[in-house]
Amino acid sequence: MTIEQFVAQSSGKWRSMRSGHSLAFQQFEEVLSEVVIEKLSKEDPGVKQLLESSLAKEQDKCSISSPFKMEWCAESDWEPDDPSEVSSGSCIIVPLTKDKSSGTLIRSVGYAESESAISEYSFLDDGTFTLTTQYEQSIAEERIWFVSENVRCRSSVLRTSAGSGILQTSFASEVRRINA
Amino acid sequence: MTIEQFVAQSSGKWRSMRSGHSLAFQQFEEVLSEVVIEKLSKEDPGVKQLLESSLAKEQDKCSISSPFKMEWCAESDWEPDDPSEVSSGSCIIVPLTKDKSSGTLIRSVGYAESESAISEYSFLDDGTFTLTTQYEQSIAEERIWFVSENVRCRSSVLRTSAGSGILQTSFASEVRRINA
Repeated sequence: MTIEQFVAQSSGKWRSMRSGHSLAFQQFEEVLSEVVIEKLSKEDPGVKQLLESSLAKEQDKCSISSPFKMEWCAESDWEPDDPSEVSSGSCIIVPLTKDKSSGTLIRSVGYAESESAISEYSFLDDGTFTLTTQYEQSIAEERIWFVSENVRCRSSVLRTSAGSGILQTSFASEVRRINA
Repeated sequence: MTIEQFVAQSSGKWRSMRSGHSLAFQQFEEVLSEVVIEKLSKEDPGVKQLLESSLAKEQDKCSISSPFKMEWCAESDWEPDDPSEVSSGSCIIVPLTKDKSSGTLIRSVGYAESESAISEYSFLDDGTFTLTTQYEQSIAEERIWFVSENVRCRSSVLRTSAGSGILQTSFASEVRRINA
């Protein structure tokens, strides 16, 4: 699996069921949301701006591959009756390849904290995409794998920056919306 | 990672938070349970009986490695007020190694259906344990990986035997009980 193939396979509208596990408190969280993944041109203004503002080195910018945009919107947002539960957003992600199966991702907004982030990615031998992001207070480890053309799974583990404590985990099952 | 190392690392008492996702109905399920994993001797009567009743070929029986017992008990079982929700059980699992990183598991009780089952296992290059079990009506694909010495994650995908339909997924976060 290459990042190009992964982004191509991920493109589209997805219906996501996500469960969060807070390990210390043994609390469950459940979120239904819609996720839209869309490939962008390398010339897209958002892509160019992100690269300029990022810490990526000049030489790394040569290896840009398949930038894309991710938008998400939690189910409750669709209900105008309850505007309190707003949980939607979008980010631009620019992969910089190191070799065929690994590299760096620059994200305009991070997963665990609302700041731009740099992640290291690589593919396992079965095609599972793994992703590690160092934030100020925490480290997020994510993995995404396709179980069929139209179903993908996504798990995440959030550690303290010190490294040993696991704060929370999550798991999402994402089904492609064919007619939407 | 070898099966010996994996079973050694898995031995102990675990507190499990498990979320199930029913994809067609978009329903969530949440289960808190305790899981106990205990290594068994190759001479254990339960191990011998399972091998005798199984379809394992004579030559395969030479490669037995780290048989173990798994017991689980859902949280609600601890409450005597509600005996209706009984969800506990145990099974014996006997690994037969094919090579260093793959082989077969014989289980006295399957995961998705209550019949004994034979699974194929292998390890991904990051040590993730993957497991495929063919039942009469379905195929279960599980993966288990350690995120620290005392936290492991377990995901499963249940497909129709025909192969294309994904019925449900699940994810468990398991924390080792140190003082219990």
